[in-house]
Parts: sequence; C-alpha cells; structure tokens
Amino acid sequence: MSFDRLIDKIKAMKNPSVVGLDPKLDYVPEFLRREFEQEDGCSLRAASRAIFAFNKAIIDEIHDIVPAIKPQAAYYEMYGYNGMKTLEKTIRYARLKGMFVITDGKRNDIGATMQAYAAAHLGTVTVGENELEPFGADALTVNGYLGSDGIQPLLDVCKARDKGIFVLVKTSNPSSGELQDQLIDGVPLYARMGDLCEQWGADTIGNYGYSAVGAVVGATYPAQLKELRERLPHTFFLVPGYGAQGGGAEGVAAAFDKNGLGGIVNSSRAVMCAYQKEGCDPKDFAKAARREVIRMRDDITAHISL
Amino acid sequence: MSFDRLIDKIKAMKNPSVVGLDPKLDYVPEFLRREFEQEDGCSLRAASRAIFAFNKAIIDEIHDIVPAIKPQAAYYEMYGYNGMKTLEKTIRYARLKGMFVITDGKRNDIGATMQAYAAAHLGTVTVGENELEPFGADALTVNGYLGSDGIQPLLDVCKARDKGIFVLVKTSNPSSGELQDQLIDGVPLYARMGDLCEQWGADTIGNYGYSAVGAVVGATYPAQLKELRERLPHTFFLVPGYGAQGGGAEGVAAAFDKNGLGGIVNSSRAVMCAYQKEGCDPKDFAKAARREVIRMRDDITAHISL
Repeated sequence: MSFDRLIDKIKAMKNPSVVGLDPKLDYVPEFLRREFEQEDGCSLRAASRAIFAFNKAIIDEIHDIVPAIKPQAAYYEMYGYNGMKTLEKTIRYARLKGMFVITDGKRNDIGATMQAYAAAHLGTVTVGENELEPFGADALTVNGYLGSDGIQPLLDVCKARDKGIFVLVKTSNPSSGELQDQLIDGVPLYARMGDLCEQWGADTIGNYGYSAVGAVVGATYPAQLKELRERLPHTFFLVPGYGAQGGGAEGVAAAFDKNGLGGIVNSSRAVMCAYQKEGCDPKDFAKAARREVIRMRDDITAHISL
Repeated sequence: MSFDRLIDKIKAMKNPSVVGLDPKLDYVPEFLRREFEQEDGCSLRAASRAIFAFNKAIIDEIHDIVPAIKPQAAYYEMYGYNGMKTLEKTIRYARLKGMFVITDGKRNDIGATMQAYAAAHLGTVTVGENELEPFGADALTVNGYLGSDGIQPLLDVCKARDKGIFVLVKTSNPSSGELQDQLIDGVPLYARMGDLCEQWGADTIGNYGYSAVGAVVGATYPAQLKELRERLPHTFFLVPGYGAQGGGAEGVAAAFDKNGLGGIVNSSRAVMCAYQKEGCDPKDFAKAARREVIRMRDDITAHISL
C-alpha cells in the first residue's frame, strides 16, 4: 500500500528507470513481423503475437538491470482484443521475471465505473466461485480531472492489494500548460492536482516516506519538477519525456530527493529502437536494448546520489 | 466530420437518448450467466460471452427506437481481453443494426500515443497489406487535461472518417467541482475546457450547426448545463446522470437548443436493470429494457420541442 516494493527494487539495482513498452509495429523488426504474418496473415492477431515476441525478448535482456516496465495501453488497444491479450501476457511475463509493472492507461471515471477499471488493472473480478485477475499490473496511471470520486475506488484496491497509482499532474507535452499552468488563486492547476495527490495518499505512506499515490511529472519541465519535488514530499514521481522528448539527465535529477529516491524515469522509443539507432543486425534488437538501458542508468545515476 | 449522422438518427426517431451498455455481471440475469458457465466454467470468457448475449438481446429490442448506444469500456476491460472482444462484438452488432456507437473510454494521451487510441477506437491500423478496424465506434469520450496535443490526433481521424469525440467538461459526480469549478481569471475550469471544445471543433461544423467535438456535461448540474448550452453554441452535449444519478427530465431539457437539438441523454442501469425494477420474469429482460427506453424517450421529449 505504498511504492515500497518498487523502491526496494530500485535500490537493489541502483537504477531509478523504467522501460516503456509502447510497441508500434514499426518498432518490431521485419523478420519478426514476417514470422507471425506467415502463420496468421496480415491480421491483428499476427501483429499482436509479433509484439509479444518483441516484448518478451526485451524483458529477457533487461529484467536483471531495470526494475520496472511501463506498457502503454494505447499501443495494445490499437490491435483490438488480440492486442489486449498481448498486454496481459506482457504483464504476466514481466512479473514472472520479477519486474514491477506500471500500466500506462491514464484511466479515469467515477464510482462503480472507476471500480471496474481498478479491478481490471490492479484488482480481481469474481465470476461464479472464482476470483480472477484480468490484467494484474502493480500500478496504473490515472487522470484526476473528475476529482476524488475518480480516485477513491483505486485507493481501496491499492490498500487491499499493495498496488499504486500515478496521477497526471504536469505532463511532458508542449501544450500541457493550456490548462495545467492556469492559475487558481495564484496556484497553477498542476500544483492543485499535486496537492490532491498528497491528500489522497496521506494514509498509505510507506517506509521510504512515499505514499501509494504517485504523480506523473514530465522531464521536459525541469523547473516544475524541482518545484513539485519540494511541494509534494510524499508523492513518488513517474517522469516521462527523458531522451526522445528532449528531457536531459540533469533536468530529471530534480525529481529525486537527497537519498536519490522519489522518482523513476521512463524511456520508451530509445530502448525499443536502439537497434535502429545503432544500425546493428535487427536480430540483435534485444541486446541493443540492453546496451541502451545500461547507458541510460549510468547517465541518470551520474546526476543523483542513490 | 460533425455529429450530423447522429442528429439525423435522433430526428428520424424523435428520440435524443442513448442507452449506456455498462454490463456489470450482476445485471445479467442468472439464467444467462449459468448458460455460459456450463460451457466455459466460471471464467472471464464465460462472463464475457454472457455479457455479449445480454447486450445483443437488448440491442435487438431497442434499435428501432433508440439512435445510439454507449458501451462503457471499463466494464469490458474488467473481464480482460475476453471482455474487450465482447466490446468489439457489441459495437459491430449495434452498427449492423443501424445504431450510432459512442465508446465511453475517457481516453487521453499525447501525440503518437493519442493517435494509437484514435486508431483503436475510431480509425484503422495497417498490418502488412491490410487496413483493419480494431473497435470501429462512431465516437469516443476523451479527457482534455493534456491540452491540444491530446486532441489534435483525434480531429484528424474525425475529419477523415466522419467520426466524433466528446470531451469531459463538467462531469456528473459530486466531487467534479474539486477541480472543474475552480476559477481561472474568474472563469471556471469547466468553462475553459468548454471554450477549447468550441475552438477544437471550429472547422468541423455540420448542417445543424454542431461540430465533431462534443462535450460531456452532467445532468446533475442543470444550472451549468444551461450556462454551457449558451456559451458553447456549436458543441453537441452528451449528458450522463439522468435517472439513477438523480438528474431529472426538466433539468436535462437545458441541454437542448430551441429546435430540440444539441444533446443526447444517457441512461444505463435503469435500462439494463429494468427487469429487476419491474420484477418481471428475468427471461423478459430485453422487453423490460424496451419499456424503459420508451418511458425515458417520452419523459425527455415532453420537456423539449424536437
């Protein structure tokens, strides 16, 4: 009922980074796509199976170095229910390998409907005499625009099953300020959302001082990252935007506390497409991913005291 | 590239209502659940198949009276990929019967990731030589907290494929005001979000004066509904909260313009569980749903001039 499980892994590996598995089909080497198209034709099923094979090979190569993966739900939904099957399989495989799994779904709704999302991604559902785990992640990203009614159902599941959530606070995109930077009584909306995270998480604070309610704060806004780290002392940060979106390691260092804790930095495309950037044999895509996660770990930890 | 297709159906049926298909397993009559559990055990697959049979029977009974359905993604996701298959099948079946389908997913992300959601729910994806439609709805609900970067990818698909979106503006839940009612330069956040809807939809206005960018505005806040109808003349409203959540027909009348257009009112539980409320034979659940949608139509249209 906090992020202690994740922080334990980060400390053990001395690596506060997470690999985003956002597998566009273009990222999957052609030889792998062809393999499944030969079995299933050019279908959503073939695409989904190729993506699972891609993910699995990357997980095999990184699970001893990287504490967590973050599959982005959109890239699975785009292949229909077959894609969702690959999401489920990817989560189960990564957990089997000991990784912490953050499903990036940015889900949001209210009451019983939010309970359904909480059950889907972090909890269980009951069918007749059986209690079943649909997707089984460790944490879920969520959008807090609907207020406490949209968050409370998640907190119940977090407490019962030692899970966590990350609420969108300040996102990494150029237009994030259109609404998030607007001032309410002199305080930006993103800081208000951050304050709510502190409030929502108040009775789930773990051994490292962080609650089960984290926040998404983009690497592309280092000043806000620093400001929010001070403002939200019990809120663990998920930091997207490192690398491909332009956030650097000096900037993301602001996400961390004096013990080098308090955040985890995501990289997706740079890891999945490392083989393209290196220009190596596409068959070595997973080894190239491993080289990139080591480079990333060393880049980030050079700027913090973990 | 507007809501003309939906409005045409509303006018033809003289019925501005939509049935929310949010099928909790408790709503599905026991005889139907048992039927599939006997084949597939107490599994996610059995639950998902029972839900499809339930949805199909309701669609068969209402498609000549009600212009649209609104499946809530959460209630399908909670049964894993099997549930997502039922979502896909429900959408395809309703469209085959001539209904307009609004997937209530409240999706949100940025750039390429939002493109993936747009492709998943409203567009197509390419696998090898094939262009495939994963879920194939007519419209999708979305959350605009991330700003224009999260909406633009949807607009491209709306224009190319004559689809629509509904952006969360003022939601029906008790805590919606925690953030949405906060004042920014004297204007509530929900009205700011509404103004963005007008801006995002500006070049997609159809024959009835409404764009492809609609707004979700809850029936439980009739004063805001009236205020927003005046403020957002080109924005079509999806109105949840009628019935079970406490919104009445007089209140929802504020969603409509002088021609009785401009909005569509959702009811979910009251329709799906009409057989429980009536206390009729559970085998007649679909006929009870039909009686309830007629009652709802007459209740709403008594208060507007359609």
